[in-house]
Amino acid sequence: MIQSKILTLLSDFGDHDVYVGVMKGVIAQINPNLTLIDLTHQIPPQNIAAARFCLMNAYNYFPKGTVHLAVVDPGVGSQRRAIALKLEQGYLVGPDNGIFSGITSKNQILAAVELTNLNFWSTSQPSSTFHGRDIFAPVAAHLASGVNLQELGREINPETLVKLDIAECRETTNGVVGCIQYIDHFGNLVSNIPASYVKDKSWCVQMKDLSIPGYAAYSDVQIGEALALVGSHGWVEIAINSGNAEIQLQINWQDELEVIIAA
Amino acid sequence: MIQSKILTLLSDFGDHDVYVGVMKGVIAQINPNLTLIDLTHQIPPQNIAAARFCLMNAYNYFPKGTVHLAVVDPGVGSQRRAIALKLEQGYLVGPDNGIFSGITSKNQILAAVELTNLNFWSTSQPSSTFHGRDIFAPVAAHLASGVNLQELGREINPETLVKLDIAECRETTNGVVGCIQYIDHFGNLVSNIPASYVKDKSWCVQMKDLSIPGYAAYSDVQIGEALALVGSHGWVEIAINSGNAEIQLQINWQDELEVIIAA
Amino acid sequence: MIQSKILTLLSDFGDHDVYVGVMKGVIAQINPNLTLIDLTHQIPPQNIAAARFCLMNAYNYFPKGTVHLAVVDPGVGSQRRAIALKLEQGYLVGPDNGIFSGITSKNQILAAVELTNLNFWSTSQPSSTFHGRDIFAPVAAHLASGVNLQELGREINPETLVKLDIAECRETTNGVVGCIQYIDHFGNLVSNIPASYVKDKSWCVQMKDLSIPGYAAYSDVQIGEALALVGSHGWVEIAINSGNAEIQLQINWQDELEVIIAA
Repeated sequence: MIQSKILTLLSDFGDHDVYVGVMKGVIAQINPNLTLIDLTHQIPPQNIAAARFCLMNAYNYFPKGTVHLAVVDPGVGSQRRAIALKLEQGYLVGPDNGIFSGITSKNQILAAVELTNLNFWSTSQPSSTFHGRDIFAPVAAHLASGVNLQELGREINPETLVKLDIAECRETTNGVVGCIQYIDHFGNLVSNIPASYVKDKSWCVQMKDLSIPGYAAYSDVQIGEALALVGSHGWVEIAINSGNAEIQLQINWQDELEVIIAA
Repeated sequence: MIQSKILTLLSDFGDHDVYVGVMKGVIAQINPNLTLIDLTHQIPPQNIAAARFCLMNAYNYFPKGTVHLAVVDPGVGSQRRAIALKLEQGYLVGPDNGIFSGITSKNQILAAVELTNLNFWSTSQPSSTFHGRDIFAPVAAHLASGVNLQELGREINPETLVKLDIAECRETTNGVVGCIQYIDHFGNLVSNIPASYVKDKSWCVQMKDLSIPGYAAYSDVQIGEALALVGSHGWVEIAINSGNAEIQLQINWQDELEVIIAA
Repeated sequence: MIQSKILTLLSDFGDHDVYVGVMKGVIAQINPNLTLIDLTHQIPPQNIAAARFCLMNAYNYFPKGTVHLAVVDPGVGSQRRAIALKLEQGYLVGPDNGIFSGITSKNQILAAVELTNLNFWSTSQPSSTFHGRDIFAPVAAHLASGVNLQELGREINPETLVKLDIAECRETTNGVVGCIQYIDHFGNLVSNIPASYVKDKSWCVQMKDLSIPGYAAYSDVQIGEALALVGSHGWVEIAINSGNAEIQLQINWQDELEVIIAA
């Protein structure tokens, strides 16, 4: 049996309007046999950093050859470039605004093009507000259907792509200082401190005036109790067993934390 | 390769319950090889006008032969008719309450039937509260699988279908007066004034005591600034670059606006 | 044509993060030709009772052989078992915490295994917080692709599975007393009183100091008026025609009600 080609979609379009449905209709007009998988459409409006984080964490779990379409695009209608990238494991299609820089910081770019070939757009007169429909979705559908990246436009130097850098954590005498880079639906607080710092150590987190012990699993503490642990994305996280750490601990995006390693 | 047939779904069922999943299960029992695409299930409860707007704007982007299943159905269990319509570009299945009147105002109805043939329902004793599951979903699945429209019930005169008329905009000495017919997830305010009125003109919008200049793209103004532009659906819209016009300008559905064309 | 195999997904992961997308990526790596249907991912966090209710009501509407993957898993990382069950109509994969006990109270378990065979996990070192990605999704994908249940791990006695019992309704001199077991997106109040008690009867509901008459359909009362009726799941429900009974009647989960049958 022929394997379905996978095309994922991520955006800040939410689910109240038909923007996502319309992109899927445009894709289906080009190739109704693609398998479409939504990553999320609930990126906070125009929040490229959240989109970058989500894409980076999802990328490795998809089959080789998957095309990832991402549309968080506050610069739509301006001179920002529309791009497609080829990587070892898959393809990326979206605006050149740093949205892919989490993935590309860890995975080599094999080729990059600016989407200048109007033959692969759905119209030669795209709307100034919805390139997802008029440029990105049709280009992604063609790419997932076997069109070569190089046909989509002119090659560009990967070094010229817009990068979105997030704060790096830094080592201290007691451990490492970082910040909250993402808060998920459960209110779990995801830091930018990699798991490697706490592996096989005895550790805790200092945050505001709280000291939160490091454990292996939610169930290592009582229901309602806070703990630090290595989350499923491979970062140090803070959570409350069966609770919401964001609300109960009153912690926000970017807040600072320190991991303390026991002597 | 055989092309997958597309069946879209739109409803006010939200995503907290299994109503949508159950409709998809019913469809899969009839034909597991259909490609299902959600338009949205977040239509405000019982808001036929919002559903009408969403369907009208999505319809043109789907392949020929697509079946659109729409269930916003405050009259379920009453004498309102269940219908299926054949148009040039696709099929429509749902209640006869005006939900399709945006599409049919712009596209000719080739045939219309009332869904009276119980053989295509999933039960001869449908629930009085969930015709989406018991009538509309199975009928849509059969239609997408090749059943002829005429087999689904008795033919009816398209002139007898319920229409939902929205306010028309009207020309003034300075331009044209209309109202807000839809507000999207970003807080963008979609008027009922078509793009044709402002094409190649210099223009602005007067609304409450605001004067909002017409531009081509969000990025033509500073971040946080209001602008009017032609939105992706082809209507005059009001937006705030990287902001939420609904909240920041305190504007509601149905509020009046005037487009002023420069002399 | 080969029938697509159906795999449904239910969780409390919400739709703001990429958890669900990642599970689908893991599934697509194993078999990109499965048809994935979301039941809901908006189960209130850690609410096994709500998940149990949703699964129980969706189960019967899916084709024979469907695999249902359910991840509401407050005990992840603890000693709670990971299980797969074979029933007449389909397969169930998830944590052993009572989530399937609504389905299994009405449908015989033909075989049950604990998921101890690491060959069907996506890693031999699963995360302590996301067994949905590392154990349940890959196992469900293998099961839907034809792997035998018995290969997934060691057989266990179905009598040893965790059960989640909900309150039973009880007959009174006037009718039957029960409670609200679920409140849906529309604010409809679903009781635990089966339709059989009111079939072909004249009846009403007493709740707090309200007396709410039993009818057949929403449209049997004026817009804005409360009614009791048999909902689409087969339980006595309380609703407001074109309104929200939860908000307008100030009723909560678990609140008591009495159905009074007319003499």
